[in-house]
Amino acid sequence: MKGIISKEEDYSQWYNDLVIKADLAEYSPVRGCMIIKPYGYSIWEKMQAVLDGMFKETGHSNAYFPLFIPKSFFSKEASHVEGFAKECAVVTHYRLKNDESGNVIVDPEAELEEELIIRPTSETIIWNTYKGWIQSYRDLPILVNQWANVVRWEMRTRLFLRTSEFLWQEGHTAHATAEEAVAETEQMLEVYADFAENWLALPVIRGRKTPNERFAGALDTYCIEALMQDGKALQAGTSHFLGQNFAKAFDVKFNTKENKLDYVWATSWGVSTRLIGALIMSHSDDAGLVLPPKLAPIQVVVVPIFKHEEELENISAYVKQLTKELKAKGISVKFDNRDTHRPGAKFAEWELKGVPVRVAIGSRDMQNGTVELARRDTKTKETVNQDGLAIRIEQLLEDIQQSIYQKSLTFREDNTKEADDYEEFKRLLDEEPGFISAHWDGTAETEQLIKDETRATIRCIPLNNKQEEGKCIRTGKPSSQRVLFARAY
Amino acid sequence: MKGIISKEEDYSQWYNDLVIKADLAEYSPVRGCMIIKPYGYSIWEKMQAVLDGMFKETGHSNAYFPLFIPKSFFSKEASHVEGFAKECAVVTHYRLKNDESGNVIVDPEAELEEELIIRPTSETIIWNTYKGWIQSYRDLPILVNQWANVVRWEMRTRLFLRTSEFLWQEGHTAHATAEEAVAETEQMLEVYADFAENWLALPVIRGRKTPNERFAGALDTYCIEALMQDGKALQAGTSHFLGQNFAKAFDVKFNTKENKLDYVWATSWGVSTRLIGALIMSHSDDAGLVLPPKLAPIQVVVVPIFKHEEELENISAYVKQLTKELKAKGISVKFDNRDTHRPGAKFAEWELKGVPVRVAIGSRDMQNGTVELARRDTKTKETVNQDGLAIRIEQLLEDIQQSIYQKSLTFREDNTKEADDYEEFKRLLDEEPGFISAHWDGTAETEQLIKDETRATIRCIPLNNKQEEGKCIRTGKPSSQRVLFARAY
Repeated sequence: MKGIISKEEDYSQWYNDLVIKADLAEYSPVRGCMIIKPYGYSIWEKMQAVLDGMFKETGHSNAYFPLFIPKSFFSKEASHVEGFAKECAVVTHYRLKNDESGNVIVDPEAELEEELIIRPTSETIIWNTYKGWIQSYRDLPILVNQWANVVRWEMRTRLFLRTSEFLWQEGHTAHATAEEAVAETEQMLEVYADFAENWLALPVIRGRKTPNERFAGALDTYCIEALMQDGKALQAGTSHFLGQNFAKAFDVKFNTKENKLDYVWATSWGVSTRLIGALIMSHSDDAGLVLPPKLAPIQVVVVPIFKHEEELENISAYVKQLTKELKAKGISVKFDNRDTHRPGAKFAEWELKGVPVRVAIGSRDMQNGTVELARRDTKTKETVNQDGLAIRIEQLLEDIQQSIYQKSLTFREDNTKEADDYEEFKRLLDEEPGFISAHWDGTAETEQLIKDETRATIRCIPLNNKQEEGKCIRTGKPSSQRVLFARAY
Repeated sequence: MKGIISKEEDYSQWYNDLVIKADLAEYSPVRGCMIIKPYGYSIWEKMQAVLDGMFKETGHSNAYFPLFIPKSFFSKEASHVEGFAKECAVVTHYRLKNDESGNVIVDPEAELEEELIIRPTSETIIWNTYKGWIQSYRDLPILVNQWANVVRWEMRTRLFLRTSEFLWQEGHTAHATAEEAVAETEQMLEVYADFAENWLALPVIRGRKTPNERFAGALDTYCIEALMQDGKALQAGTSHFLGQNFAKAFDVKFNTKENKLDYVWATSWGVSTRLIGALIMSHSDDAGLVLPPKLAPIQVVVVPIFKHEEELENISAYVKQLTKELKAKGISVKFDNRDTHRPGAKFAEWELKGVPVRVAIGSRDMQNGTVELARRDTKTKETVNQDGLAIRIEQLLEDIQQSIYQKSLTFREDNTKEADDYEEFKRLLDEEPGFISAHWDGTAETEQLIKDETRATIRCIPLNNKQEEGKCIRTGKPSSQRVLFARAY
């Protein structure tokens, strides 16, 4: 596509070009904040609708908590403050005024007594609230989710993947027992994995983070990890078992069934607009986006090939009928009958935008009762009969969904390798990037050492990981299992 | 209802009690910010879904713009700065750190070069963006909406009606001609009026604001005004024709069809979580919420009356079938089979929460093939046959929707009066509050005088207002039409 560098030549630039040229997002004048354009936002809306349905299916309700968190709240949970009370946007004043020269200035008299932090995540404000909601085991569980914007002041940003403000959902649940909270944590990980695999067409590894990589304040962080086309890993969602840490920090106790007083058990879990970045990076090519049909804002584009107005009228009548049939199947269709663009330009535009299926129809097709059917993922096309076309398109969309998932899965399998010594480990990172399955001695020190020396991190300890004796690739100390390393976004 | 003061005794307290007791919302520790609880949020979600559908039906797409606006942007549109660059939350720093004593403090070294304002509304950041999107008439119109949180630092707050942070949607459109922009402004007013009347069951007056009451930066502000049960008016939505003001402020020009350079024409329009306040205040009673069936999160509650487990089993089997039939009609049902509450307590709880229809079933009903059917709005009940119950409930829901609209309309008509002299005007305001239709000389000075003397404001000049000669109630100067006054929220 004109204006997009090839993926091979410069993956990072290819990604940026694609986001901009496909009208997904752009930078705003505020450092590190993005503007999500209508086409990009429509993908987010589709994701939201599906995830929201899954959350409700598993018993959750949505609510809304304030954007502002009093500064003091961050001091209440010791490890949380380490993780989050750093790069935050801080509100110190609540009024502007005009100075003598008529310029707008911050009114020095309107200083807040206590500074307010724009939420980087909402555990603190929510657990402060839950204190008022929970007295007895009868008030539990609380299964709440919030769709919101959050801010983490980032120095190095990249559209969708890391921005100072981003959109996300954050689930925050409260339970009577540790077992129940762990089950919730695992359930939501499975919801995310299901969404990634069956909607994003993105195979993921389900695993746990090492203590080093845990969410600040969590006893256990579960994650789904995906592999991008450049061999770098991307964390696509996390689900945290928070133990009683936040209940203790905000003094949230409840009367148990046995009429004892205990602290409440907590989980939190979230995915963000980062998933749009994952979607782009896992399937797209040098011609533009490749979107999974289930999340594509437009699933089918119909391009008429015509010279004269009568030809267009004839084609339009047929397309009207086809559109009706497709819509009845819940398939979204765009009829691109603009007379300002040539067919070739239209083809390129819809390829760039990742529309999974393209139908082209000319006058000869109308005479023959055929159309040209093209699929975006493989860029193959064939001439097919108009009879039964809607059914054929429906099947083709399913086929594409499966096919790009399989392609991603094969890619990941081809790029997941074992390393049994450190030289091989480093060679793989540089020459054949991907997941590396390797032994590690289980200490935070060694993990940090490897990170400092190679920029690779432990992405996760896969769930149900095979136990096997081995030696740590860095220290040679004994290890009972391999873990997954990679360089990551 | 226990814990709620009567509406007659103290309308304002009644409202607050109701919001809290019905689990809609509560105050947060951050001054003036609210927590929207799951039940309250589920009403907002229903509103969002309907409005979002209406926006898309009229050709709009959603997008997302940053929370932060550089301070300098507010100085660019002269009247906008007057209206909005006042009570704003101002971000001045981007980092926290621990001081020597381990306390979390704002890092004085992390001061922003230019302060950032939390958006009170997004015209400035959006028109700064549109500059990059618009070159030619071919790029127009731009029809974009955003669902977002905004902040206006309020000193006197009230849940849903006036909070420092609130949720809303803001439409921002760009057009090639003034006519097209005015048509858009009027179209969106009609969308809001349609939504208010046919979904909220809230009759509204469509009108225009006086110059005094216009949105800061608008050439014309259209509004819908509703009358609450205490006779105070509430502005339920606004739609602004912004002329070329923002295009000029942000230098957004386009090549016209005639190949001339012109500034782009703009509109903006919004409704907010304030609508939930309007909903509560217009229909509810001393027993709790009365929700219009079309927006009620739960439309039907079924309460079994039983002593023994076998009775419940028998009833449950029937309810399962009924639920299936209702769900097939798109009707949401809650089967309240808790054994921890007596039926009376359940009745009171669902009345408080405004569930439109209640079905109660005991063992005798099961023998007789009947149920007790109660409607929330009139609190009437009757014993009806189980045969055809789903159809009957469907009709009853429609009936309730119509009925509460009619009741509100009758109330408004009864409480809209003409005043032809100032004494009568003041007497009406104090003794028979409602809309007052009165002559006004058309000047901002008189409008302000009346406001200062009576706390009544001109709510709007109704669309297609009857023209008639008269004298201003305050100054006696000639007037060509009556306008609508009221005290307002």
